Amino acid sequence: MEDGEEREWGAKAWTYLSSVRSLSPLIQCITNFVSMDLTANTLLSAGASPAMLHSPNESPDFTPQVNALYINVGTLSDNWLPAMELAAQLASKLNKPWVLDPVAAGASRFRLKACLDLISLKPTVIRGNASEIIALAKASFPSTKGVDSSHDSTDAVEAAKSLANSSGAVVAVSGAVDFVTDGNRIVGARNGVPMMQKITATGCAVTALIAAFVATDPSHAMEATASALAVFGVAGELGMETARGPASLRTHLIDSLHGLDQTAVISGVKITAI
Amino acid sequence: MEDGEEREWGAKAWTYLSSVRSLSPLIQCITNFVSMDLTANTLLSAGASPAMLHSPNESPDFTPQVNALYINVGTLSDNWLPAMELAAQLASKLNKPWVLDPVAAGASRFRLKACLDLISLKPTVIRGNASEIIALAKASFPSTKGVDSSHDSTDAVEAAKSLANSSGAVVAVSGAVDFVTDGNRIVGARNGVPMMQKITATGCAVTALIAAFVATDPSHAMEATASALAVFGVAGELGMETARGPASLRTHLIDSLHGLDQTAVISGVKITAI
Amino acid sequence: MEDGEEREWGAKAWTYLSSVRSLSPLIQCITNFVSMDLTANTLLSAGASPAMLHSPNESPDFTPQVNALYINVGTLSDNWLPAMELAAQLASKLNKPWVLDPVAAGASRFRLKACLDLISLKPTVIRGNASEIIALAKASFPSTKGVDSSHDSTDAVEAAKSLANSSGAVVAVSGAVDFVTDGNRIVGARNGVPMMQKITATGCAVTALIAAFVATDPSHAMEATASALAVFGVAGELGMETARGPASLRTHLIDSLHGLDQTAVISGVKITAI
Repeated sequence: MEDGEEREWGAKAWTYLSSVRSLSPLIQCITNFVSMDLTANTLLSAGASPAMLHSPNESPDFTPQVNALYINVGTLSDNWLPAMELAAQLASKLNKPWVLDPVAAGASRFRLKACLDLISLKPTVIRGNASEIIALAKASFPSTKGVDSSHDSTDAVEAAKSLANSSGAVVAVSGAVDFVTDGNRIVGARNGVPMMQKITATGCAVTALIAAFVATDPSHAMEATASALAVFGVAGELGMETARGPASLRTHLIDSLHGLDQTAVISGVKITAI
Repeated sequence: MEDGEEREWGAKAWTYLSSVRSLSPLIQCITNFVSMDLTANTLLSAGASPAMLHSPNESPDFTPQVNALYINVGTLSDNWLPAMELAAQLASKLNKPWVLDPVAAGASRFRLKACLDLISLKPTVIRGNASEIIALAKASFPSTKGVDSSHDSTDAVEAAKSLANSSGAVVAVSGAVDFVTDGNRIVGARNGVPMMQKITATGCAVTALIAAFVATDPSHAMEATASALAVFGVAGELGMETARGPASLRTHLIDSLHGLDQTAVISGVKITAI
Repeated sequence: MEDGEEREWGAKAWTYLSSVRSLSPLIQCITNFVSMDLTANTLLSAGASPAMLHSPNESPDFTPQVNALYINVGTLSDNWLPAMELAAQLASKLNKPWVLDPVAAGASRFRLKACLDLISLKPTVIRGNASEIIALAKASFPSTKGVDSSHDSTDAVEAAKSLANSSGAVVAVSGAVDFVTDGNRIVGARNGVPMMQKITATGCAVTALIAAFVATDPSHAMEATASALAVFGVAGELGMETARGPASLRTHLIDSLHGLDQTAVISGVKITAI
């Protein structure tokens, strides 16, 4: 039965990837300096169209043209935060999906408050690691070690449900198993390989991919989110077959994402309800 | 006859690449965050010496030392624009060539005006895709979809001639065929592979390479520009022979650019007058 | 005898790398835009935990949590300098090791003064190329050509000793041979391959690796610094075996750093007293 469920999810994930390839959604990315290259290349390889525009001078003209907005607070500073807030406000007002990656949410009071302020602007999806989601659910400093997850994602499921309920967002927690919840249902995605954590910005990149998937079907954000996580993980698994370390894995992952076919997605995706 | 013309251009392109390798021109790059890595690596692989210095506190001391200036407005913001304008003014005053990449020129009123203001500071070369060049020639908002080209480059030839005549710059339009014009003559370069558009910042990188080529021969900017576009395209074609997707193509393209020899350039370059 | 000395250093270097892998020190990186990707990936591949947080709003909360701080002035601007100074002050006050990469120190008066101001905040280690170290020791503008070294590192040994004595820092000069001095002793590391200079930000990346090594043993900064330089060089030598140019070398270097075993380090490291 689980096998049938997984194939159904595989078919769904393939539909999302096919839609991204055919529609080439335009994704405005306001993301950290470390991840810009990998994020743009991930979106391009998946068939989406990335646009790294962040200035408050531009968002009023530009955000109305995009299909989704992606905000990532990685290298946050006080002169980028208003840009993020303005773009998020515009997206919400225009009913465009927007996705938040609360990198290292618990690293400082300033960052935690920034993330909570952004969450009040109604993101469609929030994706983080266990530590980040726990920090946001607790909403108190201190709680985490840097940008890495020091909790397992299973610990964070309750925090994710709580955050989903309080924010109205779909919440995803990355880990050995990725969990996605709307506050009520939970699904688990079991794709990916551990070495992906040794490549900087893979988390940032998959959150951008979530934005692209959600852009094609904003009313099913939970399904789109789980599908994006699983598809990125399948690309990582295929990439790992020939990788000799984290840098070649990064190359092969992007190549694989670009080349994924229906069989690889349908047979590779491992999503089930929990 | 076309064959003879192509070989003549091939020999010219080889001379430019050889000059870059032997002179190692110092190129000041004020470019967007997404492209910095690929831009620096492209310049290094070609034999040039990149310097990513942008602060207005530094350009008065530094720009006089460089052989060319490269300005790219990709991740534009109001605190970077004065830095671009100051460096462009210095370069113009010092008679140093400078090259503009007007990324997503039509994405917002702010960006379009910024590009037009920079063009009034007399760039030696402007390189963009069809949408960007059309937006600049029209000088009205709105006109484009994000950073990608939604026009074919052939559509943009008239816009390019018009922009070249009004600005005094050599104008290049990238596409399936790259066109280069000084407002009077037009040449077409037919190198490169479609998958290069699936790698972020290849456009930014080739514009930096134009700056390096022009640095070695500022009085023949049109020839240097066409040569840089073709040489980068040849590196892409060679890279494509072993690429399995966009990420490995990026690696192989840079490796190929570094390793290009006389035979590969002379036999590979496909430039003709139009 | 030199052979015995080299093996002793090899064993020491292996101990440092093993400590980084087991302790996973958290390294706060305030570095330039060009190098962020390679720097983070270098630290991850070595087993450390990078955190690219720079805002003065965050350092008071975050710097107390880190094991070392890395500051690199590559794409310096006047709004980043106070962030660097605040983090350096915090690190010094908290007795945490911090490492400075004075990229292009001599490129402008502003940059030279910024580097000298940072040095007054007592870095544990300073690593630069010959031109940079000479510029800092001379403390006068002008002295260098851009970001590349126009002096051989042997020329810079006297400058390094002088800078080490005046600053109290361990000073490393990269070149065909890397020299490390505390102002009294000098060691030379002879690892690496010339093509590493054709990859942008390898210098920045190895300085970050120094921070990770020093984090595990702050009271022996000279040994940790020489070991980091040699280990990175060994990874480059192994990467070069299969590289076809600078871009594949970059990939293989990071893969090799991740995969280095005891035999490769002990037999590969070439450090001797001078």
